[in-house]
Amino acid sequence: MNIDMIRAAALRIKGHARRTPILTSPFLDEIAGRRVFVKAECLQHTGSFKFRGGWSAVSALTDNALKTGVIAFSSGNHAQGVALAAREHSAPAVIVMPSDAPAVKIANTRALGAKVVLYDRETEDRDEIGERLSAEHGLTLIKPYDEPLVIAGQGTTGLEIAEDMNALGIADADVMVCCGGGGMTSGIALALAADAPSLRVRPAEPEEFDDVTRSLISGKIESNVRRGGSLCDAIITPQPGNLTFPIMQKHCGPGVVVSEDECMRAVALAFDRLRIVVEPGGAAALAAALFHPDEFTGDAVIAVATGGNVDAPVFAKALETLQ
Amino acid sequence: MNIDMIRAAALRIKGHARRTPILTSPFLDEIAGRRVFVKAECLQHTGSFKFRGGWSAVSALTDNALKTGVIAFSSGNHAQGVALAAREHSAPAVIVMPSDAPAVKIANTRALGAKVVLYDRETEDRDEIGERLSAEHGLTLIKPYDEPLVIAGQGTTGLEIAEDMNALGIADADVMVCCGGGGMTSGIALALAADAPSLRVRPAEPEEFDDVTRSLISGKIESNVRRGGSLCDAIITPQPGNLTFPIMQKHCGPGVVVSEDECMRAVALAFDRLRIVVEPGGAAALAAALFHPDEFTGDAVIAVATGGNVDAPVFAKALETLQ
Repeated sequence: MNIDMIRAAALRIKGHARRTPILTSPFLDEIAGRRVFVKAECLQHTGSFKFRGGWSAVSALTDNALKTGVIAFSSGNHAQGVALAAREHSAPAVIVMPSDAPAVKIANTRALGAKVVLYDRETEDRDEIGERLSAEHGLTLIKPYDEPLVIAGQGTTGLEIAEDMNALGIADADVMVCCGGGGMTSGIALALAADAPSLRVRPAEPEEFDDVTRSLISGKIESNVRRGGSLCDAIITPQPGNLTFPIMQKHCGPGVVVSEDECMRAVALAFDRLRIVVEPGGAAALAAALFHPDEFTGDAVIAVATGGNVDAPVFAKALETLQ
Repeated sequence: MNIDMIRAAALRIKGHARRTPILTSPFLDEIAGRRVFVKAECLQHTGSFKFRGGWSAVSALTDNALKTGVIAFSSGNHAQGVALAAREHSAPAVIVMPSDAPAVKIANTRALGAKVVLYDRETEDRDEIGERLSAEHGLTLIKPYDEPLVIAGQGTTGLEIAEDMNALGIADADVMVCCGGGGMTSGIALALAADAPSLRVRPAEPEEFDDVTRSLISGKIESNVRRGGSLCDAIITPQPGNLTFPIMQKHCGPGVVVSEDECMRAVALAFDRLRIVVEPGGAAALAAALFHPDEFTGDAVIAVATGGNVDAPVFAKALETLQ
């Protein structure tokens, strides 16, 4: 796993993934007490950065592998990213999704042409299901984070952040990334280590799902006790990946742990001040930037808003946190 | 009023206004029955295209005029655009706003450092108030649409649309613009006439506030009977401007009139499929593209999402239109 793989992914993705904008608001700067830059990956195709990893992986397959098809297991955003990438390559896609995933994510994945297989997040092991179906039907398994091609795709976000921040002359800043298994976090970290080494990548996680933060402290892979039932469903993977963790150990600063309520308030402020739709898990980085000012030292924070696939009732509930 | 003024405004705005993205969704294409491109001006600074016109006008003032200050009258978005442009030029700003404007717009205008003067939209004449305060205090009046520098600023949106659509090879398409007084519509029309002449600009208006659509049919300036009380508060100006109407007569195709309910459904679909926050008046163009397919002939529609400053309860109400 190295920077050349990310640059290669950037070439394959060019013209297919969106180059998402960096948004700002003087109102958010005031809350955070420093400049806040939001990388709006919720505006990516399928509503999250996962399209980058999906495209990166699918576009690297042989014609034969594309013809047989791909399989992915995902809480929803990776599912949609892989489904759309597969459809645009005319490849069949099977997606294994938890039965408690937001309805909109399940429906969207189906509408993108994928076959959806549901499983129970509390009692079944998605890795086992994914690997079994993959073996039975010859499908290429596209893992959500512990896969070099996927990490490389997510890392293209980091190349864009580096380019934009270098153009703005922002050098002393933390880059907060909403962190599940660590594919996005480690990909961005590798990209910034190469192109903007003074920017520090740090994972943002919800309380009770702070496996990466604890793993970085203890120096070994730690797991979460809880497995589901969080509004931050996009980033509640059980533990960091075997590939992603060493990268994060080498390149990432300490994690910031935010409450679910802080994520909901960040969703509301992104609505009010940036006019973007961010899902609770995708707002963890912004919540850290806004509500944990004492955990930062730089003049600026870049928060990656990783996804915007949220059911309307949850979003309406978040808006109630505005005065 | 000509294309050179728009190109000059584009030079003044460069690096200050955002170059907003064009967003798409296969789900929206399916509803419309053709390709739908959404120019997300809700992501502009202050949440609407009005920042372009405000910056264009303020940046053209002499140092003395900047020192004395500016005044604007506006239902809210022009207010914020002028207020921020004035603040970034260190110029004092007085904003005359209707007392029924969304609370978020009034609060934001004040927070941007402007002095806000409220008036009653039903009984008072904002032009009279604006001109009186302007004369009393020597402030430069920046009209919301019937002002060449403002039209030129809004027209920079059209230069970007032309560039993006030319790059995509989209030639046979209508460009729907949410239309109040016609500053944005006429500015974009002038820009496209120069840079993408095969694209047809057409105004989108809410029912009972379809003054431009009727004026284009009758060939003379027509007024609305109703003056307020619409969810589409951003675009319910009484009649087209004296400067903007002849431009629209020359360059624009027939208007499309949409219901308030269609605007609310378009707000919800923009949330669900594009992850952007659009206000009801800013969704009129998208509503036309999605729900009035018989009024279009081209393979594609470009809908300008003009603004995203909406109170949370109205937005939550719009979301209820999703199944």
